[in-house]
Amino acid sequence: MFKAEIKADTLKTLVNVISTVVDEVKIAIHPDSLGIRAIDPARVAMINIDVSKEAFVSFEADEGEMGFDLDKIKNIIKLAGPGDTILMEHDPNQGRLSMTIGNIIRRMSLVDTNGMNDPSVPPLELGTKVQINADLLQKGMRATETIDSDHIKMEADSEGFTLSCDNDLDFASLKVPASELKALEAQQHVASSYSRDYFSNIVKSIPGNVPVSLQFDPDYPIKLLFELSDGNAHASYLLAPRIEGE
Amino acid sequence: MFKAEIKADTLKTLVNVISTVVDEVKIAIHPDSLGIRAIDPARVAMINIDVSKEAFVSFEADEGEMGFDLDKIKNIIKLAGPGDTILMEHDPNQGRLSMTIGNIIRRMSLVDTNGMNDPSVPPLELGTKVQINADLLQKGMRATETIDSDHIKMEADSEGFTLSCDNDLDFASLKVPASELKALEAQQHVASSYSRDYFSNIVKSIPGNVPVSLQFDPDYPIKLLFELSDGNAHASYLLAPRIEGE
Amino acid sequence: MFKAEIKADTLKTLVNVISTVVDEVKIAIHPDSLGIRAIDPARVAMINIDVSKEAFVSFEADEGEMGFDLDKIKNIIKLAGPGDTILMEHDPNQGRLSMTIGNIIRRMSLVDTNGMNDPSVPPLELGTKVQINADLLQKGMRATETIDSDHIKMEADSEGFTLSCDNDLDFASLKVPASELKALEAQQHVASSYSRDYFSNIVKSIPGNVPVSLQFDPDYPIKLLFELSDGNAHASYLLAPRIEGE
Repeated sequence: MFKAEIKADTLKTLVNVISTVVDEVKIAIHPDSLGIRAIDPARVAMINIDVSKEAFVSFEADEGEMGFDLDKIKNIIKLAGPGDTILMEHDPNQGRLSMTIGNIIRRMSLVDTNGMNDPSVPPLELGTKVQINADLLQKGMRATETIDSDHIKMEADSEGFTLSCDNDLDFASLKVPASELKALEAQQHVASSYSRDYFSNIVKSIPGNVPVSLQFDPDYPIKLLFELSDGNAHASYLLAPRIEGE
Repeated sequence: MFKAEIKADTLKTLVNVISTVVDEVKIAIHPDSLGIRAIDPARVAMINIDVSKEAFVSFEADEGEMGFDLDKIKNIIKLAGPGDTILMEHDPNQGRLSMTIGNIIRRMSLVDTNGMNDPSVPPLELGTKVQINADLLQKGMRATETIDSDHIKMEADSEGFTLSCDNDLDFASLKVPASELKALEAQQHVASSYSRDYFSNIVKSIPGNVPVSLQFDPDYPIKLLFELSDGNAHASYLLAPRIEGE
Repeated sequence: MFKAEIKADTLKTLVNVISTVVDEVKIAIHPDSLGIRAIDPARVAMINIDVSKEAFVSFEADEGEMGFDLDKIKNIIKLAGPGDTILMEHDPNQGRLSMTIGNIIRRMSLVDTNGMNDPSVPPLELGTKVQINADLLQKGMRATETIDSDHIKMEADSEGFTLSCDNDLDFASLKVPASELKALEAQQHVASSYSRDYFSNIVKSIPGNVPVSLQFDPDYPIKLLFELSDGNAHASYLLAPRIEGE
């Protein structure tokens, strides 16, 4: 069984982050938490979130799993006003999820989770670490939008962090000195490139005031670590590198 | 002759409600009121509004009739700021309506009313009556929007009122207990179905804080009764039932 | 060299006004000012703006010229928050302009100014003069939008000013009496017609609280004179007349 109440805003943020990777998702249900692990269809990005029961207003669950259609969930969240809570309940007999907001009830069939893979998170030790608020990354990504290019470059050294995008005609960068970063570990100058669209999507889905830890090394995936739901949900996002010459 | 001044907001609401049924409308002009009676092209819905002269800031009129293009009227209303009044004047010689907002004058040819029918309002005594604010109905209809179905179901019994929509995969409902309804008359459990789009359109056009009286019986049209313009306009809307098996 | 800092709002207004005429513009750079003179591709409208160094937060420049892609500039301005300033710097070696907003740097190649003409401003002494705030002209133009016509008519006499648009079915006007005009010079009744779209575009690009001086005579271009950047930029806009029978 699964019966949990959650603030609409909390659910909205979680759904927005997950839906940068997949449209349908398998949720692992545990007595004290939910687990989400999903890889995008092109196998370029992976999201991994653990949501503890403290992220919920109330939470009762047995071990199990459910498949969600995220677009349907988003549409229901739109019915909630500010401060509203949403009651989510799984009816295993009918294979349905019901969501209740005040006088409104919305029930939907769950998505079949057979065939949904269980991606394993690759063990990665990345040497370069930068911590920076999501809104600054969002601003940097907006600056790159009008440039005809499909990748961005991350750079760091002991002086600071630079996110940039360029082609023959245009160049945009966000350059943050070490003094304005929340954390910085960079042994030497390091540079690595990633897909602009993927990085832009994940960065836009994170609330602006959330600190994001970026971990990267040349030709390795970049890892984004951040907390949601007032620290009650731990998220990590992996994005494959763009190898030069590809 | 017809010369009347009206608050832009009042006119806007009236035009929005009428234009859920028709694009062009014939207005019957009386010395103390206006009368609107219109049926939609598919003959599924009918609107009937009496607007007393008290809904206007000033009102002078002889018996007559005028044909309006509602889209043109809507566009003129958009020119008004909050609190602006609109002076409407009929020039019978030119067959034109002039509308004045401050320094702006907009004149338009009237629509030919020959060939516009005068629908008669069918006498209907409906047994089930529910009164509920428009914003709650709007919320209920929004909950049904993502469901692939073209009709909704109304139900009432002594316990309360339910508006719902479903198909094999999805279900949405607004369920209001008797204690939260403004009025409830239901001898027994009653259920009847109607077109979702038509019902959604009329409900969205009514200001949220307006109480709407729903009157229905199985396989009969549903009647919506509500007041606009601070009680100076009385509206009734009839919508044909969806007979099961159709 | 060119290195200047300007408030994002000031730059935005200047760019909006210029881009009603051209997408790419040549800017003449002087030690104490910038000069913009551009004619639209159809040769119907001309803009002429002198921006003194007082419009800038800081300004250092040698004599020269630069070609700007206005869409790129607009996109960068969108990155600025309220109150932000933008540092613009020309790198003559690379032929690039760099724009800096906080931690964001955006560099772009300049547009080739060879082949961009230097339109000469025709000497025009126009007899009829009307001064009126831009927001009133904007409201008048909005009133004409739903009328199927491609020109508008300006009229003035000692009583006041009228802007109007009509066809066989519809008529819209803004009529401002002399007492509500900021200035009025009209020896006799004068009427002249101009392209609705061109006039609408320039009028919409001017901030609402800016007084606009309209100067016109029958079958002559209309001249709009207005100040931007708190009086530190002087703009004139010329629009060819629509000759009756054309």
